[in-house]
Amino acid sequence: MDSEQLIQLGQQLRVDAVRAADAAQSGHPTSSMSAADLAAVLLAGHLHYDFDRPDHPGNDRFILSKGHASPLLYAMYRAAGAVDDEELLTYRRLGSRLEGHPTPRLPWVDVATGSLGQGLPVGVGVALAGKRLDRVPYRVWVLSGDSEMAEGSVWEAVEHAADQRLDNLTLVVDVNRLGQRGPTRHGWDLAAYTRRLRAFGWHTVEVDGHDVEAVDAAFDEARSTTGRPTAVIARTRKGRGVAAVEDQEGRHGKPLEDAGEAIEELGGPRFVRVEVNTPHTGRSAAAPAGGPLELPRYERGDEVATRNAYGEALAALGSARPDVVALDGEVSDSTRAQFFAKEHPDRFFECYIAEQQLVAAAVGMQTRGYVPYASSFAAFLTRAHDFVRMAAVSRAGINVVGSHAGVAIGEDGPSQMGLEDLAMFRAVHGSTVLYPCDANQTAHLVAAMAEGDAQSRGVRYLRTSRGAMPVLYGPDEEFPVGGSKLLRSGDDDRLTLLAAGVTVHEALRAADLLAQDGLPVRVVDLYSVKPVDERAVQAAAEATGCLVTVEDHHPQGGLGDAVAEVFADGRPVPRLVRLAVGNMPGSATEPEQLNASGIDADSIAAAVKLLAEKVVVR
Amino acid sequence: MDSEQLIQLGQQLRVDAVRAADAAQSGHPTSSMSAADLAAVLLAGHLHYDFDRPDHPGNDRFILSKGHASPLLYAMYRAAGAVDDEELLTYRRLGSRLEGHPTPRLPWVDVATGSLGQGLPVGVGVALAGKRLDRVPYRVWVLSGDSEMAEGSVWEAVEHAADQRLDNLTLVVDVNRLGQRGPTRHGWDLAAYTRRLRAFGWHTVEVDGHDVEAVDAAFDEARSTTGRPTAVIARTRKGRGVAAVEDQEGRHGKPLEDAGEAIEELGGPRFVRVEVNTPHTGRSAAAPAGGPLELPRYERGDEVATRNAYGEALAALGSARPDVVALDGEVSDSTRAQFFAKEHPDRFFECYIAEQQLVAAAVGMQTRGYVPYASSFAAFLTRAHDFVRMAAVSRAGINVVGSHAGVAIGEDGPSQMGLEDLAMFRAVHGSTVLYPCDANQTAHLVAAMAEGDAQSRGVRYLRTSRGAMPVLYGPDEEFPVGGSKLLRSGDDDRLTLLAAGVTVHEALRAADLLAQDGLPVRVVDLYSVKPVDERAVQAAAEATGCLVTVEDHHPQGGLGDAVAEVFADGRPVPRLVRLAVGNMPGSATEPEQLNASGIDADSIAAAVKLLAEKVVVR
Repeated sequence: MDSEQLIQLGQQLRVDAVRAADAAQSGHPTSSMSAADLAAVLLAGHLHYDFDRPDHPGNDRFILSKGHASPLLYAMYRAAGAVDDEELLTYRRLGSRLEGHPTPRLPWVDVATGSLGQGLPVGVGVALAGKRLDRVPYRVWVLSGDSEMAEGSVWEAVEHAADQRLDNLTLVVDVNRLGQRGPTRHGWDLAAYTRRLRAFGWHTVEVDGHDVEAVDAAFDEARSTTGRPTAVIARTRKGRGVAAVEDQEGRHGKPLEDAGEAIEELGGPRFVRVEVNTPHTGRSAAAPAGGPLELPRYERGDEVATRNAYGEALAALGSARPDVVALDGEVSDSTRAQFFAKEHPDRFFECYIAEQQLVAAAVGMQTRGYVPYASSFAAFLTRAHDFVRMAAVSRAGINVVGSHAGVAIGEDGPSQMGLEDLAMFRAVHGSTVLYPCDANQTAHLVAAMAEGDAQSRGVRYLRTSRGAMPVLYGPDEEFPVGGSKLLRSGDDDRLTLLAAGVTVHEALRAADLLAQDGLPVRVVDLYSVKPVDERAVQAAAEATGCLVTVEDHHPQGGLGDAVAEVFADGRPVPRLVRLAVGNMPGSATEPEQLNASGIDADSIAAAVKLLAEKVVVR
Repeated sequence: MDSEQLIQLGQQLRVDAVRAADAAQSGHPTSSMSAADLAAVLLAGHLHYDFDRPDHPGNDRFILSKGHASPLLYAMYRAAGAVDDEELLTYRRLGSRLEGHPTPRLPWVDVATGSLGQGLPVGVGVALAGKRLDRVPYRVWVLSGDSEMAEGSVWEAVEHAADQRLDNLTLVVDVNRLGQRGPTRHGWDLAAYTRRLRAFGWHTVEVDGHDVEAVDAAFDEARSTTGRPTAVIARTRKGRGVAAVEDQEGRHGKPLEDAGEAIEELGGPRFVRVEVNTPHTGRSAAAPAGGPLELPRYERGDEVATRNAYGEALAALGSARPDVVALDGEVSDSTRAQFFAKEHPDRFFECYIAEQQLVAAAVGMQTRGYVPYASSFAAFLTRAHDFVRMAAVSRAGINVVGSHAGVAIGEDGPSQMGLEDLAMFRAVHGSTVLYPCDANQTAHLVAAMAEGDAQSRGVRYLRTSRGAMPVLYGPDEEFPVGGSKLLRSGDDDRLTLLAAGVTVHEALRAADLLAQDGLPVRVVDLYSVKPVDERAVQAAAEATGCLVTVEDHHPQGGLGDAVAEVFADGRPVPRLVRLAVGNMPGSATEPEQLNASGIDADSIAAAVKLLAEKVVVR
């Protein structure tokens, strides 16, 4: 397309954005209009993409980080012939694929956006896959707003991209100077962005974002720059093209008042279909070669930390499956991801202490078919909560592993203790939450986490422990997701202890103590916290009438709630007792911590005796 | 102190750090030793602080962002005469104030650290209070590690500090080049940090962190620099002074193998008490002037969004209390914090789209006696989860307000919907979680949140809604935290609907529908989600035998769990039914969303009829 055609295409995108928002009577047309010329030049001149084959390994990737500008994205899809005009006008309606913010319900959207500051971090993950795994010359284009440059996650990504010399990544910043509330911090001071990005090692180009020739040249420069990523920093005007809204405050997130007049001002309706460049040559990602899976095997009675079993199992899984990759937040010696790093350095990604980027990179890599395991301390994964939440909206299949769970870590104190992680991961839509108590169980669950495919996508979380614990199970036992293990049972059981991780061992010891006192109790290992083994929980309720959950986690949102939820459909509910970490821990040894929180064997036994005395149990 | 004395003080701090970690047989002496000379110069020459009066308004503030170097901090306290040698050697023991990572159990620690990348963001909050509220010339000193410079939260803070020209803030970066796992990304490339910080507008000084004269000069330069914050970027050696560990990998987080020999190498035990500079002159923060509280009053039957009531009540509260401040993440037009901003611009803090900095600044300000309200979309507060978690460890009293809760926001779709926030805030130790359904209720709860003092510290969360809802309550009704409202009840109630926020209105409509069908049901407004009104929930259970919770939140960790937890002590449990958002929403209108998620009046009525047919209710 020549310049005049590009200008006309920009106007077409504006018209369609205005039309879509007008049909919906909601949405963000003015945020779309500022970036329309950038989008036109990208779509017509620089993007390599086959809209009929969104899974083509040689496709470029376009991530609209400013997801509220979805009318622009859908207008681009219409221009490319992927969406017809009828569908365009279903924007934001019930059942439409054209949601208020883009999601992968559309086959050309790899990741959901709308939580600002996520596009670049995820784009870095995709570009890393291109550079270090696929080795296909596709390019990742991220279009971001200027407001979102205030998010720390953006700077984690800027640092990561420069460090990894991702010259296959282009960030386009639509500097329209107006956020939702009013002016941004830097307004039209393009140099403010340039200085920052250059300091981190990026190549930058400042450009008038409405000068299609200049934009075209900037994109050319980005594509030809080697050894570092490029940012195109574009000065634009919000609502460009319609005087009533152009560069005006108070026009964010609203349809135009007079859409018909605006469309006239934009030159009237028109439609030119864009011929998009064909994909790059490339083979499929993650070729399924590899070998048989030989998981580590542990002897019963040995003392092994589940974090160690995680690292060893992941290394073994990496040998069996070339699509498995690992990422860590500069704590791989603690999480034991180092075992994978040592055996598969080409598939290990050090993300340093930047947990948002850690999870974002994993989300990016899974869009290219990889099976990522992202690990840090459970406590520090709270940094990435928004990325985990958005991964669910993205229908992403990622594995997240949190070590150093609970007060059982001992002396380091509460800042290092994962005590909210079960609540956080359970509340994520479609998630799986696993919490093993034993090395063989851990190894099997690590392998099970890789089995998710497009049909069973979701965030899969594994919680591991710092300290060594006795191996309870043989290496050939099976541990299906959604299962449990009945560890103690008898006809006279007075109640059931339900535990996971470290508290399984405490519950077993408590059961021994109680048996000596003539109080037999049942013990269930609920290693699958979500989905929980409903049948086993119900069976225990029917058999013993009272369920006591014991967990190394705050009382809210964890194992106790998972058990209560089994009875949330109106069926009769057994008596429920919850032992959990209700205190604010300090520093102490592991046994002292478990005791202070009332979840060690002695505390469990004492609680059961109290229940027996109060005759709330049979 | 002269240079030789400063050198000796540095060695003393090293010796005490080694001794403390040796006594505990855990901890991070090598991370302490790299920063010992920086700490010596700061303590003896630059800090203004009265250890007998940690609440003195003219005290400087020192935040050890690299909290794992706690042995160094405690050695400083010993040198200042605040901690004696006996206590120093209780480090990391059960009951000791000297925890593995610093917490405010020590009166000189304002905020807990140990989750890296939090010290500077919180320090910015303290410095903002000094500059814009207290107007006292105290200085905030933050000592950070080099590894944590990878955290995005640091760059949010760097941006915020420069933007606000915080020349009362000094960041000291201990560039010892070794993280926990091995070398940091930038090693000893001090210029890498300098470039980045300067690009954001900071003044920087590079220095040999073991040259006490150079460090002294650098701190002088920081103190005399006006108009912008200063970073002292110090090249240091981890484990400095003991050849067996100095600048060695694999020595992180371990006591020295031969402490006795190390102490000899450091010059042997010694003790010199440091005379610290006296505090600056300054009045008490937040003088309790102000006026009577005149909350907004809403007429029953009017339609008002709870977010509007939040903004209006906060503005009124600000007029009554000069210690109330508001912060927002560039969405104050949506959260309605703009109403406060308009009336009290001097106490409103725009944090732009940087939710970690938003919460961190609030934490910083409450250390100076202010009562902060930090607002953003509920969904985006997940960005700040780790800061909220650490606020609890800090015993901080902060108010956090999340708007746009749940699917009820309508067309914008799941990226903008707070559907995990109740789970997140409930699982935080000592938190309060409030979710009003009505404008008058909102206003009263906003006022109640300000009543927390040193005796009732904690994170207080208020969840507000986007859409207008009928005013149910009169302006003079009372809504105590931990209370509830019984909205419908009769002797023949078949079950109880427990709801909060938008679902209260749906539950009331459902009750009307069901009454027409001869199925009377009770309705309770559980506006206090944590603490929940246990007596009211139990009374409803006794009266009706079946509790149906209805919530605009994912099924895990929210209202349903809060109700189940009431029965977690072994008492008989009523039948429980949970209606919540089990689907992944798309775009749709508010009524369509509530219906698709099964939490609108029709869905509630249908569910109750089904329960009645199945005869699980009486």
